[in-house]
Amino acid sequence: MSQHPDQKLDGQPDPSRRKFLNTAAFAGLAGAGLSVGLSACKQEQAPAPGAEAPGAAPAAHATSAGVHLKPGELDTYYGLWSGGHTGDFRVLGMPSGRELHRVPCFVPDALTGWGLTNESKAIMGTKPDGSLKYTVGDTHHTHASYKDGNYDGRYAWINEKINSRIARIRLDYFICDKIIEIPNVQGFHGIFPDKRDPVDPAINYTTRVFCGAEFQVPLPNNGTDLEDTSKYRALFTCVDAESMEVRWQVLIDGNCDLTATSFDGKLAATNQYNLESGVHYVDMMSAERDACLFFNIARIEQAVKDGKYTTIGDSKVPVVDGTRAANKDPKTALTCTVSVPKNPHGVNATPDTKYFICAGKLSPTATVIEVAKVLDWFDGKLENPDQAIVAEVEIGLGPLHTAFDGRGNAYTTLFLDSQIVKWNIDAAIKFHGGDKAAQYVVDRLDVHYQPGHINASQSETVAADGKWLCVGCKFSKDRFLPVGPLHAETEQLVDISGEKMVHVADHPVRPEPHDFIIFKRELLSPKQVYTLEDFPHAVKLPSESGVFREGKKVTVKLTSQAPAYSLPEFKVKVGDEVTLILTNLDKIEDLTHGFAIPKYNINFIVNPQETASVTFKADKAGVFWCYCTHFCHALHLEMRSRMIVEA
Amino acid sequence: MSQHPDQKLDGQPDPSRRKFLNTAAFAGLAGAGLSVGLSACKQEQAPAPGAEAPGAAPAAHATSAGVHLKPGELDTYYGLWSGGHTGDFRVLGMPSGRELHRVPCFVPDALTGWGLTNESKAIMGTKPDGSLKYTVGDTHHTHASYKDGNYDGRYAWINEKINSRIARIRLDYFICDKIIEIPNVQGFHGIFPDKRDPVDPAINYTTRVFCGAEFQVPLPNNGTDLEDTSKYRALFTCVDAESMEVRWQVLIDGNCDLTATSFDGKLAATNQYNLESGVHYVDMMSAERDACLFFNIARIEQAVKDGKYTTIGDSKVPVVDGTRAANKDPKTALTCTVSVPKNPHGVNATPDTKYFICAGKLSPTATVIEVAKVLDWFDGKLENPDQAIVAEVEIGLGPLHTAFDGRGNAYTTLFLDSQIVKWNIDAAIKFHGGDKAAQYVVDRLDVHYQPGHINASQSETVAADGKWLCVGCKFSKDRFLPVGPLHAETEQLVDISGEKMVHVADHPVRPEPHDFIIFKRELLSPKQVYTLEDFPHAVKLPSESGVFREGKKVTVKLTSQAPAYSLPEFKVKVGDEVTLILTNLDKIEDLTHGFAIPKYNINFIVNPQETASVTFKADKAGVFWCYCTHFCHALHLEMRSRMIVEA
Repeated sequence: MSQHPDQKLDGQPDPSRRKFLNTAAFAGLAGAGLSVGLSACKQEQAPAPGAEAPGAAPAAHATSAGVHLKPGELDTYYGLWSGGHTGDFRVLGMPSGRELHRVPCFVPDALTGWGLTNESKAIMGTKPDGSLKYTVGDTHHTHASYKDGNYDGRYAWINEKINSRIARIRLDYFICDKIIEIPNVQGFHGIFPDKRDPVDPAINYTTRVFCGAEFQVPLPNNGTDLEDTSKYRALFTCVDAESMEVRWQVLIDGNCDLTATSFDGKLAATNQYNLESGVHYVDMMSAERDACLFFNIARIEQAVKDGKYTTIGDSKVPVVDGTRAANKDPKTALTCTVSVPKNPHGVNATPDTKYFICAGKLSPTATVIEVAKVLDWFDGKLENPDQAIVAEVEIGLGPLHTAFDGRGNAYTTLFLDSQIVKWNIDAAIKFHGGDKAAQYVVDRLDVHYQPGHINASQSETVAADGKWLCVGCKFSKDRFLPVGPLHAETEQLVDISGEKMVHVADHPVRPEPHDFIIFKRELLSPKQVYTLEDFPHAVKLPSESGVFREGKKVTVKLTSQAPAYSLPEFKVKVGDEVTLILTNLDKIEDLTHGFAIPKYNINFIVNPQETASVTFKADKAGVFWCYCTHFCHALHLEMRSRMIVEA
Repeated sequence: MSQHPDQKLDGQPDPSRRKFLNTAAFAGLAGAGLSVGLSACKQEQAPAPGAEAPGAAPAAHATSAGVHLKPGELDTYYGLWSGGHTGDFRVLGMPSGRELHRVPCFVPDALTGWGLTNESKAIMGTKPDGSLKYTVGDTHHTHASYKDGNYDGRYAWINEKINSRIARIRLDYFICDKIIEIPNVQGFHGIFPDKRDPVDPAINYTTRVFCGAEFQVPLPNNGTDLEDTSKYRALFTCVDAESMEVRWQVLIDGNCDLTATSFDGKLAATNQYNLESGVHYVDMMSAERDACLFFNIARIEQAVKDGKYTTIGDSKVPVVDGTRAANKDPKTALTCTVSVPKNPHGVNATPDTKYFICAGKLSPTATVIEVAKVLDWFDGKLENPDQAIVAEVEIGLGPLHTAFDGRGNAYTTLFLDSQIVKWNIDAAIKFHGGDKAAQYVVDRLDVHYQPGHINASQSETVAADGKWLCVGCKFSKDRFLPVGPLHAETEQLVDISGEKMVHVADHPVRPEPHDFIIFKRELLSPKQVYTLEDFPHAVKLPSESGVFREGKKVTVKLTSQAPAYSLPEFKVKVGDEVTLILTNLDKIEDLTHGFAIPKYNINFIVNPQETASVTFKADKAGVFWCYCTHFCHALHLEMRSRMIVEA
């Protein structure tokens, strides 16, 4: 018998929780007059094989002790989190769930001056008039660079869905150093780095990042074929991890959603929820099965090398043909389509390197696809790609994403059930193979509420350690003090070190993180102080400070050393184009200074040994007290420079 | 004997901590070749009266139990926090320290569309071309509206220093509804609401907000008197709490820093660190004593009523003369200057309503000023304003801000000592009065590191409850996992329910909160769903949706109900000025939707029953998949509308 869904962990019924599910989660479906077969699935769930009935009390091994750190105690894991439409990249300490940093990337950040300094504008991208091209962003997925199947601490990447951008984060300084916009696509959603080269065994680390596009558009999307939806297409994209240039794209049928890669470097994968290519959501869910699409990286790159590609519109990126019609012969195919039930979401590679798992979303199933068999199909050894499916089992309502503990178990979020289901992959394969006694569901845990992404410590590496699991719950409802209509989301922390999952903490987060990764702190060694020489415009000595005029162009060079700037005052004239360069000569860790100019809409910071610059038009006469905005010293309030703008 | 500063709570020496102080905190002072007498102060500290030696082990009454909430357990206090140069207003749950919300006010917020929707732009303020006037902000102090000496849950206010703005936050919806820019000032820093009317006893609640300006500038600051620093002046400002219009300003000597108000409504106060009116920091610290300046509110308002004011430049705000030269006669004086040692920081009203306390910053002292005696001076009953000083006692190095427990004790941050000192006000008064046996220092606690603001639960009200104390530490150094050069700050939580302070948790925060308040959750009842009728442009039914054209001006009306927008597609033409109005018809708490338009730099959210609009130029032909950015439903990914822009 499986755990009754109306029971809380303490064994007491929790009717309010279910009441919410009934109203919120199903409201839209009911309101739109749709029947998507979810009720039917619910009924089918009862006889599905479950685990032994869980005891009412959590196992003794895992309590909240060890989750809450003592003052001064450090977290043992880093968490890298997307920030959703807050547009940022977040760094959490785990298990405390404390947010330690936000790395500005796609949207301006008033604290750091990101989007305002010349250096950050060059990374973000500007219009011809110098203003930022984009100020909104919607980050979804972040993953880090690999070496030998584990994180190597070089980079993380994060996607931005609204404007189809990808950013790279340097993990030495936790800064964004590169952003590009992917051409020819809309709704860029999934992202995953490769883990090694498919051909060269010496390249045992990440050199590519794969990007899936969710929305299908006319190609090129320039006003032609506006309403001929049969011509709308999506592309799968490969970005070079070092140069951050787009290497190639693949034209496909249907769309891309999430992305995953095999540990051998040979395959990339994307789940597809709209193989129908519908433009209305009713059409997008009309087929009973969609797909997981696999890309043969070596063959695609050979095709590009052989010139077997086209380009789209103004874009110079090689585009190879990955449609089913063009890839019928397995021996030459660039892609392989394995069918997956109804609008799947999530595709995840198991840490034993053997499988990809797709979650059914509108089907209550998980589909397990064997990597070796997909490769067999490409080698002509498998008649039908669906023969690569080694399990397709019912796990609960609205399955979305799956994490792993390195002990053979998968943890899948059930959006509609508001649960995590822990299930054993080998047992699922046995059950699928006919062994109906195989108990693949190990445990179920209520979460609060409507979980989306899930991940476990080291889950996406060969070093999955099965210690902590975190689940991003899209609704928090009543879990925190009320703060008005906009609710925090809940990142719930679960101890998975034992047989039973134990929910140990609720961490609210500003909406809305999607994906995240959690890994051991030993894998990173961030630097705390910049190197002066890394900044070409650095003002290396206070004596280099001054106002340097060339006609109407004025350069003001400044340094900071607590509690003073090198120039207590400086003069410019109305009409000047002023470029102000500030180098922080303080060398001590954590001794950051700010620089604000009242009424001129300028503020930015310089971390120890950092140089930053801003350019602005002196358009107002008067006295403007530039001041340090980042607390630095007992005389911080007195740390000022006086900008005198002469009429 | 007082607690040895090199001892940690467990009694073990912590040399690394002091090492940091020696290098970081003093580096600037030493580097600038200054001697500010701090070393001397340090020597004087030893014989100062202290508490009994604290035991090595924290008292049993307060451990980390009770600080860390169980999953689902709610916080018992709200915390309202400034966000510093992040420019926001934050809502924390206490004691967990979890950030539950950020209320966008002074700077754009990509998550909500603040600064992008027409509604938020109207509040933030725009240039003639429709773009935002300011996109950076530096929030420092937040305080809430009072009734009968306690918070009444109507409003909070928060200041912005770079551009001298003040924002009001509605505490029913936790939204900013009004922002104004204060004229004639620069470096607006301190802010405090009054607590009742000075004249009308029926007005037992907040109707004014007082604002102190820190930087002295030419008046008007339009290019005249640029270098005649003797003409630079600062003003103290009163803003109407309801209309948010500036009522009046007071011309003063020196500058304003922090602000406080008496519980009887009669006095506002500001500490002054630059009575010298220096423009270089060395000059700002040349005098041995600066001041706390008191404003007689009733007299100032009578003077305004009597027409005894001037105006400055284009501003129509009445400015009364509060300089010392004009206010020598106590019986008619608008202001009263009480001297305070060297560059004081912080002025705080005690919850027993009797005193104001100023911290010495560059003097190791706290100064206790009796409210009744200041009023006596205004009544001609006190010869010298300094006779209102009832205590001036040494408490430690770099005292900045003071909080209270409602049991007669004050808690002052010592920036240079990296400590909190708990001291008894009555004992300090006795000691100052000559009773050298009075032990006013009760306890000292090391914090990490360089504490600035401090506050305790309900500390600024007559209901101070002495339960939790939080201290904003400006440097976190080694308290969290390293995340590059920009460090989080540390808000350290201290249990003050017992005789000894017990540090129970470290909460990292994104730089840089300054002030904050903590109050009981029962004082607020926020609403979770908006009222449709409160939005004049609401699209109240899906049937009201459509594209409405008037020449080149096009209005697109849309509604949202999970998982669909009312229009699956809509058409506009290149060159149109499009205003898109979206009403979220979902009524369920927490069911927020987003609306992003790819490549058009648009994203915003609509909370339940909320209406928002954006206006943009259709300047690119093509198909643009508008999509829901705020997870709402199992079919969230499929929730889209297709904007077709015809060439």
